[in-house]
Amino acid sequence: VIPGPSIASADRGLAYGDGLFETLRVVAGQAPLAARHAERMTRGAACLGIPFHKYQFDQTLAALLSEHRGEDGIAKLMLTRGAGGRGYRPPARPELSLISRWHDSVDRSRQAEQGLSLALADVRLSDQPALAGLKHLNRLEQVLAWYRAAAPDVDELLMQDAAGRPLELASMNLFIVSAGEIWTPPLDRAGVAGVMRGLILETLAAQIGVPVREKRFSFSQLHAADEVFAANSVAGVLPVRKLALWSWPVGAITRRLQAAAEELF
Amino acid sequence: VIPGPSIASADRGLAYGDGLFETLRVVAGQAPLAARHAERMTRGAACLGIPFHKYQFDQTLAALLSEHRGEDGIAKLMLTRGAGGRGYRPPARPELSLISRWHDSVDRSRQAEQGLSLALADVRLSDQPALAGLKHLNRLEQVLAWYRAAAPDVDELLMQDAAGRPLELASMNLFIVSAGEIWTPPLDRAGVAGVMRGLILETLAAQIGVPVREKRFSFSQLHAADEVFAANSVAGVLPVRKLALWSWPVGAITRRLQAAAEELF
Repeated sequence: VIPGPSIASADRGLAYGDGLFETLRVVAGQAPLAARHAERMTRGAACLGIPFHKYQFDQTLAALLSEHRGEDGIAKLMLTRGAGGRGYRPPARPELSLISRWHDSVDRSRQAEQGLSLALADVRLSDQPALAGLKHLNRLEQVLAWYRAAAPDVDELLMQDAAGRPLELASMNLFIVSAGEIWTPPLDRAGVAGVMRGLILETLAAQIGVPVREKRFSFSQLHAADEVFAANSVAGVLPVRKLALWSWPVGAITRRLQAAAEELF
Repeated sequence: VIPGPSIASADRGLAYGDGLFETLRVVAGQAPLAARHAERMTRGAACLGIPFHKYQFDQTLAALLSEHRGEDGIAKLMLTRGAGGRGYRPPARPELSLISRWHDSVDRSRQAEQGLSLALADVRLSDQPALAGLKHLNRLEQVLAWYRAAAPDVDELLMQDAAGRPLELASMNLFIVSAGEIWTPPLDRAGVAGVMRGLILETLAAQIGVPVREKRFSFSQLHAADEVFAANSVAGVLPVRKLALWSWPVGAITRRLQAAAEELF
C-alpha cells in the first residue's frame, strides 16, 4: 500500500477507474463515522476483487488525522488496484495504492438552514447491478451531468435512474416524507449507498420515531411529498427546498433528522 | 498540459475517471493511424467538455516516438481534465493532464493465425447514450468482467449489451459475416467506437469488395454466422474461432480483411 501525494501513471485507478473512495467529515481531528466508511470500502473492495483489509484504512486515516490534529476538514481515501495486469485483466496479486488527501470543510450553513436548490440532471444514471451501490472511481456520469447543467448556480443535481425515476443527487442520497413515512429509492441497479443513508435506514429514523423504507417513487410522488431531504456523511442531512419550479417546505421530520445526524459528530 | 510518469493524486482522471485514452500500434517508430486516434480523442474531449486541440496529441505523441526511434511497441496517451473543480463539478478552465506511456508489443501471431477463443462475460455493458462510443477512463465493467471470468485462459471476453445481445469484446469490436455481408453492432448505447472499426466501415470492407453495415444481431445470428472476427487498432483484425462450445471456421473474408488491415502498418 503506497500512500502519497502523487500516483504512477500506470496505476489502474487512473487507467480504468479501478478502485474506490471514501470522504469523511472530520471534526476537531476526529472522524466519528470512520468505522462505517472502512466497512463500506472493504465491502466494495470484496465486490471488485481487491484484497483489502480495513486495518489498512484505519492506519492510513490515522496517519492523515495525526497530520491535522484538532482540525476540522474532510479526509478523502482512494483505494486502487495499483499497477499491473494485462490491459483490463487485473493482476492476480495486485499491489494496492491507498491514497489519502485532506480537504478544507465547505460551509453548509446556508444549505442547512434554507435547504438545497436543485436542477434536474440531463444525464441519467445507467443500470449496472454489478456496480450499483459502490463508491467506485467511475464517476463520469456525475461529471458530465454537472458539465451539462443548464443552471450552474444550483446547489445540487437530481439524477434519474435509467427508467426516468428520481434516484439520488449527484453526491447525496435522496429521501421524501410521504404519509408520515420516509422513503428512499433502492440502489440495486444504480447509485451510491451512502454512509449517512445507511445510518438513517438503520438507526436515525427509528431514533426520531419515523418509519423508513427503501421504495422507488415517481416524479409525481416527489412533487406531492410533504418533505424532501438529502443526506451524505460529510454534509449530514440537508432539506431540499426547490427543484426548478417545484418547492417544498422544510418540515419537522427533516429538522429532527438533521439534528440527530449532527449529534453523530 | 503536463506529461510525465506520475500524476497528482488530486487529478480528476484518478478521482472520477474524468478523461480519455488512446492506444496506438507503433511499427519501426511510426504510428500510421495517429491522425485517426487524435481525431477520436478530440471528439471525445468535445463530448466531455474538455478543451483539447489535436496538436497537443500530435506534440505529445511525437515526443514519445522520438524517445523510441525505430522501435515497435504500443503508445498510450491519457488525457484528463486535471485537478480542480468542486467535487464532480468540473472547473470552468481546466488545466489538462496529457500523459504518454510506452508499452512493449504483444505477440499476436498465434491469435492472428488460429483465431481467438472467447468466453462470455458475466457483466453486461450498461446503456449510457451520453458516453457510448467514447474511449473514456471509466472501465470498471471490463475490469470486473475479467475478474469474474470463469475461464481465465481464453483470449478475450464477449460482452453483451444491457438487452443481452452480443456487442463487442472487452477490448475489441465484434463483426460477423452473414449472407455475404459484414455486420457490426451499432454503438449508440454502449461500447467503444474503435479506430479499426471505423476504418473497416469507411474503407477496408469496400477495399475488399464486401458490403458492411452497423446492425444489431442476436446470439442465434452469431451462432449461425459464416465468419466471426474482432478488430482494434493495435491487434488489427483477428479471427474468432471459439465461444465456449461454439466454433467458426476462419473464413476468406476475414483473411482478406486481416491482410488489408496489416497493409496499413
